[in-house]
Amino acid sequence: MDLSASGLTQRLAEAGQSHLLQFWSELSPKEQADLTHDMQGMDFNEISGFFKNAMETSSSSKHDKMDARMEPVPREVLGSVTRDRESLKDWELAGLQCISQSKVAVLLLAGGQGTRLGVSYPKGMYDVGLPSHKTLFQIQAERILKLQQLAEQKHKIKCCIPWYIMTSGRTMESTREFFSRHSYFGLDKNNIIFFQQGMLPAMDYSGKIILENKGKLSMAPDGNGGLYRALGNQGIMEDMEQRGIAFIHVYCVDNILVKVADPSFVGFCVEKGADCGAKVVEKTNPTEAVGVVCKVDGRYQVVEYSEITLATAEKRSDDGRLMFNAGNVANHFFSFPFLRDVVQKYEPKLQHHVAQKKIPYVDAQGQLIKPDKPNGIKMEKFVFDIFQFAKTFVVYEVLREDEFSPLKNADSQDGKDTPTTARHALMSLHHRWVLNAGGHFIDENGRRVPAIPRDGAAGSVTDDGNRNLKDGTDLPIKCEISPRVSYGGEGLEELVKGREFHPTLMIDERGVHELVKNGV
Amino acid sequence: MDLSASGLTQRLAEAGQSHLLQFWSELSPKEQADLTHDMQGMDFNEISGFFKNAMETSSSSKHDKMDARMEPVPREVLGSVTRDRESLKDWELAGLQCISQSKVAVLLLAGGQGTRLGVSYPKGMYDVGLPSHKTLFQIQAERILKLQQLAEQKHKIKCCIPWYIMTSGRTMESTREFFSRHSYFGLDKNNIIFFQQGMLPAMDYSGKIILENKGKLSMAPDGNGGLYRALGNQGIMEDMEQRGIAFIHVYCVDNILVKVADPSFVGFCVEKGADCGAKVVEKTNPTEAVGVVCKVDGRYQVVEYSEITLATAEKRSDDGRLMFNAGNVANHFFSFPFLRDVVQKYEPKLQHHVAQKKIPYVDAQGQLIKPDKPNGIKMEKFVFDIFQFAKTFVVYEVLREDEFSPLKNADSQDGKDTPTTARHALMSLHHRWVLNAGGHFIDENGRRVPAIPRDGAAGSVTDDGNRNLKDGTDLPIKCEISPRVSYGGEGLEELVKGREFHPTLMIDERGVHELVKNGV
Repeated sequence: MDLSASGLTQRLAEAGQSHLLQFWSELSPKEQADLTHDMQGMDFNEISGFFKNAMETSSSSKHDKMDARMEPVPREVLGSVTRDRESLKDWELAGLQCISQSKVAVLLLAGGQGTRLGVSYPKGMYDVGLPSHKTLFQIQAERILKLQQLAEQKHKIKCCIPWYIMTSGRTMESTREFFSRHSYFGLDKNNIIFFQQGMLPAMDYSGKIILENKGKLSMAPDGNGGLYRALGNQGIMEDMEQRGIAFIHVYCVDNILVKVADPSFVGFCVEKGADCGAKVVEKTNPTEAVGVVCKVDGRYQVVEYSEITLATAEKRSDDGRLMFNAGNVANHFFSFPFLRDVVQKYEPKLQHHVAQKKIPYVDAQGQLIKPDKPNGIKMEKFVFDIFQFAKTFVVYEVLREDEFSPLKNADSQDGKDTPTTARHALMSLHHRWVLNAGGHFIDENGRRVPAIPRDGAAGSVTDDGNRNLKDGTDLPIKCEISPRVSYGGEGLEELVKGREFHPTLMIDERGVHELVKNGV
Repeated sequence: MDLSASGLTQRLAEAGQSHLLQFWSELSPKEQADLTHDMQGMDFNEISGFFKNAMETSSSSKHDKMDARMEPVPREVLGSVTRDRESLKDWELAGLQCISQSKVAVLLLAGGQGTRLGVSYPKGMYDVGLPSHKTLFQIQAERILKLQQLAEQKHKIKCCIPWYIMTSGRTMESTREFFSRHSYFGLDKNNIIFFQQGMLPAMDYSGKIILENKGKLSMAPDGNGGLYRALGNQGIMEDMEQRGIAFIHVYCVDNILVKVADPSFVGFCVEKGADCGAKVVEKTNPTEAVGVVCKVDGRYQVVEYSEITLATAEKRSDDGRLMFNAGNVANHFFSFPFLRDVVQKYEPKLQHHVAQKKIPYVDAQGQLIKPDKPNGIKMEKFVFDIFQFAKTFVVYEVLREDEFSPLKNADSQDGKDTPTTARHALMSLHHRWVLNAGGHFIDENGRRVPAIPRDGAAGSVTDDGNRNLKDGTDLPIKCEISPRVSYGGEGLEELVKGREFHPTLMIDERGVHELVKNGV
């Protein structure tokens, strides 16, 4: 392998990264080729610039006195499903109309692997153990399909909701293959557009790129804010423009309850003339680890939970609610012109955030070291970094139990955001849909189950001792409704009203089924 | 053993309970004596009356149209720590004054065993794994001790808060022995008064008492509402009267955060001239399994979660909150005259509630059967059954994260109300006390820990992968402050202000300690 011919040696030397070649002579020809390939696409000077700027921003005192600069979201830019109930129907109709005109696209952030979940494939491919065993990708695809149908039925016009899916270098191939294998879950493959977020190398504190092994750089995705750069350099904005997209709903793959292209949210933002909007859930506990949308120096931003003091987190408004209670759930609305301006003009000016990490590396002797303290940084941008550029920013508050249950961690004792909590959240929502449509559930003895079922742990021992063992992790009522039947609870009366069901109840495009457990 | 001499045979025959003697001839003399002893104290006619009344009430249609009859708690009878902040100090001072005059007693409901926790001893003896390994009983005792001191210091007068502890037949002996062995945790033993709630037999649906084995009746405590009967028949009201008690704070043993004799709550109730008050936490999720305080037909009561329809549970007020959001936490205030009237006049008129249960029994062949469907009932009264008799009823809303974390279940995947959640709730509260008093925490690298610590599961893998394994169930910040040092966060500035601490931080009567973990 002739290194000098590629100019790589010189480029590395100029950028102060020559150490990346320190084990060159020990590498096999294949390894040499791979390393060369990885490095050839990299702009080392740009990366050094990112590093310098990020470290400067990170060490500056801009976070000081954040408390004094924070203001809550004013009531006039807030829409709330609990406090503005009289407007909900109008917003939904407005959103459905935009959808019927094929003006609404959805954009999925799906660059992460399920590492914390304990799997090596993309999170969207995860099966949380629903009766149907649908994956997150399938649930979201079917919601898009159903929403298209609802808009078409309402407006007697054919429409489509293009689905832009941002993967990363690690998830692109398996994601594409998964969609293909499942025939795009019934969607038109031409309306599903995959693109790929960028990667950046991990650096030590002096700006040297870290080697993960002798022939491989330590690389990580550039944060969900890498979205904007990827939209620009992969022609996605042009694709949107050609399709006539006017509004984009951005969301994260891990929320099993996500209302993809939510017509109420879209309609609210459109009616308010917003260029940018954030869906939020109420933060009710001061120490909940969630970022909050607020104004800082007159501009909107997300203040992360690690940046806030307890005194500020505990501040309350006169109505008793937390003053900073607009919990960010990575669920946003953009107008097309705003997103285009962000991609072209605003985002490139933003610095990366610095995350100090324990990064495995090879030392000068070629030994693999797993540090027990942070030894370097990863550089990331966040999708919400660009809120500050919005001219008309709005916030839309929804109910957590209806719309937000992220899948982040493997099941474990006292686990938060696990497959179990995600599965329960979906089944609880669908149980409520059935009750509100006039259906009922009965238990194995033919007695009606109360609307609020006793959870597995709450029974007395003689009563539920056995049940705990069998079902302790699978209450509430087992009930699943296919998104192909109902997007948000609508259209169920004719199927369930006045009827009694034994769990497990499944309602899908083939009808209403009760799955009776073996031996019960 | 001469049965006929005791008159028992005849009493049983008259009450239709002769089946209790069906295995008599197979019993040993000791078993015969035990069975006779158990039955001799029982009034079978009274029990039959309870059964008839309870079954009638249970099968009547009184629950029908509950929805139409429910009204929320009016604002004017509600005190709220988040919405009435300007009054809090006054209420606390009023309560402290009552305490200083020795007018306030606390009454602990501790009749239950820790069966669901997986232990056979009283719940109050449980150690949830705090750094100090204090039990629930000790924590509560030390809060009483501290509150006496605070009242004495404020008013320069010696005072005492008598502690009435209701045990059951199953827990009396071990509870007494535990307090004695621990020297009453520093309290005067003359001010701790144990008494015992009654037991009732389990019955089948035809009113026959169930045999748990050939020589033993199936017995269970008569519900926490058994309190009132026990107060009457064990001379407790007379004891209170002799001591000059004017106000009684009733609470349940399992809440690790309970503010025993909470001066703010007592002061609020006294200032409002209430004869009865309920402390509540806001119910924010419609399907949370908690009873709610509300008005039904103009009288206050707790509507249990199993009695409410989803439509009512989901109703909201104009401010967006749930309309029925006063979550009952078994934490009540009574004036002495009201409690005396309840014991003497009101409670005896109330029917028992029926709980259908799977009750192990011996069949006619003497075989022990563990039924897999409910086969009988237990009869219970509830402590809140008597709210309806109050002339001036008030509700006091507090923050769940500050005051309510019950211990009900053993640790398990996705567990609620476990030793882990109780331990975390207490340490999180004490962490917040330290921060609000001007202290800080630093990590093993000397960096300040943010006020809202990342929870174990939320870190990235390279960052927190190892930490998860070690500490996943023990975050948040380990910090415990003895109630002997601070009852509710007061008095900590001089100990922590401007100082930096490594967890585990312990503050107790011997000073401020940092416990450094081995090997870290």
